[in-house]
Amino acid sequence: MAMKDRTLLMIPGPIEFEPAVLQALGAPTPSHVAPEFIEAFGRAIESMRKVWDAPTGQPFVIAGSGTLAMDIAGANLVEPGDRALVLSTGVFGDRFEDLLLRYGAAVDVLRFPVGQTVDFDRVAHKLSGGKYKLMTATHVDTSTGVRIDAKQLGELGQQHRVLSILDGVCSVAAEEIHQEEWGLDVVLTASQKAIGVPPGLALLVVSCRALGAFEARKHPVTNYYADWEKWLPIMKSYEDREPSYFGTPAVNLVAALDVSLGQILDEGLQARFTRHRKLGQACRAAIEALQLGQIPTNSLHAANTLSAPTYPAEISGSFLLREIRNAGAVFAGGLHPEIKEKYFRIGHMGAARAGDLLAAVGALEAGLIACGARCQAGTGIAAAQQVMISQAYLAN
Amino acid sequence: MAMKDRTLLMIPGPIEFEPAVLQALGAPTPSHVAPEFIEAFGRAIESMRKVWDAPTGQPFVIAGSGTLAMDIAGANLVEPGDRALVLSTGVFGDRFEDLLLRYGAAVDVLRFPVGQTVDFDRVAHKLSGGKYKLMTATHVDTSTGVRIDAKQLGELGQQHRVLSILDGVCSVAAEEIHQEEWGLDVVLTASQKAIGVPPGLALLVVSCRALGAFEARKHPVTNYYADWEKWLPIMKSYEDREPSYFGTPAVNLVAALDVSLGQILDEGLQARFTRHRKLGQACRAAIEALQLGQIPTNSLHAANTLSAPTYPAEISGSFLLREIRNAGAVFAGGLHPEIKEKYFRIGHMGAARAGDLLAAVGALEAGLIACGARCQAGTGIAAAQQVMISQAYLAN
Repeated sequence: MAMKDRTLLMIPGPIEFEPAVLQALGAPTPSHVAPEFIEAFGRAIESMRKVWDAPTGQPFVIAGSGTLAMDIAGANLVEPGDRALVLSTGVFGDRFEDLLLRYGAAVDVLRFPVGQTVDFDRVAHKLSGGKYKLMTATHVDTSTGVRIDAKQLGELGQQHRVLSILDGVCSVAAEEIHQEEWGLDVVLTASQKAIGVPPGLALLVVSCRALGAFEARKHPVTNYYADWEKWLPIMKSYEDREPSYFGTPAVNLVAALDVSLGQILDEGLQARFTRHRKLGQACRAAIEALQLGQIPTNSLHAANTLSAPTYPAEISGSFLLREIRNAGAVFAGGLHPEIKEKYFRIGHMGAARAGDLLAAVGALEAGLIACGARCQAGTGIAAAQQVMISQAYLAN
Repeated sequence: MAMKDRTLLMIPGPIEFEPAVLQALGAPTPSHVAPEFIEAFGRAIESMRKVWDAPTGQPFVIAGSGTLAMDIAGANLVEPGDRALVLSTGVFGDRFEDLLLRYGAAVDVLRFPVGQTVDFDRVAHKLSGGKYKLMTATHVDTSTGVRIDAKQLGELGQQHRVLSILDGVCSVAAEEIHQEEWGLDVVLTASQKAIGVPPGLALLVVSCRALGAFEARKHPVTNYYADWEKWLPIMKSYEDREPSYFGTPAVNLVAALDVSLGQILDEGLQARFTRHRKLGQACRAAIEALQLGQIPTNSLHAANTLSAPTYPAEISGSFLLREIRNAGAVFAGGLHPEIKEKYFRIGHMGAARAGDLLAAVGALEAGLIACGARCQAGTGIAAAQQVMISQAYLAN
């Protein structure tokens, strides 16, 4: 059964994956207590600490989606009556409100206008006024392409003794993160974004401070599957190269994770961050050259993992996306309810290379021309390429 | 990276998988809104209804392990103060107690001695005496190899107006189940057992009655990721061949699920049940011929998906399992804490064929002989083969 032709998948996840990762995924499944698997699982846990830059953090690898990763953070850290501050820059920020309410939190939300990033002066003011136990924020909101300053989140959390939960679903392993140095308590993601593994794994690294808060809970976690008490011994066992059992690990996905994390560390984190910065900047330059608007109000807080251009006036979004697809690239439609019909999204993370971005921008140009938009062939690609080969950029 | 040699994986899950399923798993990942994927997801949902034999049931396919499937059932159907009856024939039955307590249930447990099946006279008596909202049971407890009479569970549930939740993790698509005819409200499983897909999917089919109970809830579900309110529109959309989003589906696993369910329906459910009955009977005959004991106290309630033989006296279990592995088959150690060191487990479900079972019994014989057990080479295999070729069996 052909599930996919050679059309480039440039949505903000799932993304294009490395052949070696797909090979590990499709390999005959070993037992979850087989020595080779135990080694792969243990190594993946160790690699996560390096990728998150959290030398003393506790990684968790649990079968499920990124939404489960968010749920795991909330379920384990919230007790009824706890006060929580949600910083929202889009759909995924908003989700935390509903999620934390489930566990009995009293939730305040600081919601920033679509396209704007978190204003940490307002956050500091809010933290000074209330006795919050934790706060949540989305590093890159996939619905808007807005990035926040995760370093400030961690620092304010430390300063005000408030636990900080960073949803890094669209950022970990692509946008710069130093979890421990920045004082972030939970940094979570899903496998199918910049981590480079097909969907199905929730991934978190948790600080000692957050584990301490968990251990000091007065009530059991009202979510059986998410409970760290169940998973902590499992993660510690596999890291000690001993099998252990709570739920059957998603063996093939964990083997693929081990391969992908190995590739990420081989590339080097700084090189990887730089590559993503370059991809992001090149994509934005192309969009600008093609005279399309962008959702992030300032390129300084635009994500490097996805771009969010607006449709040209009087052009049907679904028609444009179809033409772009015919020209060889799959982009995603809008997701934020306020602006859903006005914009689309281009993912450029993980295995995406300069050539993929050029091909994607080429398909964008072809699609625009097919839709009758005013657009000179080559303008967008040339703008992207100028960023790509710029030496000045590399010196930054 | 070689994750696996040609050693037969005969544990009670993960199991040996069909090459076409592994191929679908390792294929380049399409977008979760790509037409081919939408079709695969929709078809998988339709196929589940057939495999579960629940024409009006609502299937759920959610990224996670079998433990999550149990949690989803409990989280959505229990509200604080609800009375629940747990029927336990092993470790997985016991789990429901802890799980249901998390959601505020008042839990009674009917725990049956290790190796015995559920005595439904006792259940009927208990149901007559208490106002239970729901009861849980394990069709085949993977820790003991004991099967219960799932038909009686459903019938008693209907009679007493108590919701019945059947953990079918080690039974669905191998042991006979007619969810709707038998009146079972939730039948849940995981992908990596007789469904034949590597681990990472929680699968449930839910009756109209159970969905009605869910809709009549007075309190929100205190588990964000498990909430049917979030997932119902997603399942309905994909079945209507429209994409929809809550959490990113485990795209590759869902594609593999579609392939495997297709194979299961191609084999035919009755043929598949018969094949498993034959595998189970053949394995038990071999174990008996080799003069090993078995955990289920009666072969009438022994599972057809796994067997649970005891170690011969004075033979080290870990040594025997190692020798069996050297002879070409991987079995699992004991899991039930009361008898952990006394027995081991042989899985024979899903893609397992007669030849696999003969090879597994051959490795068992070789292992026993290498450990110095009294065992005549060929005795076990011959006993298994006699069941396999028996016409009398087929007439049953």
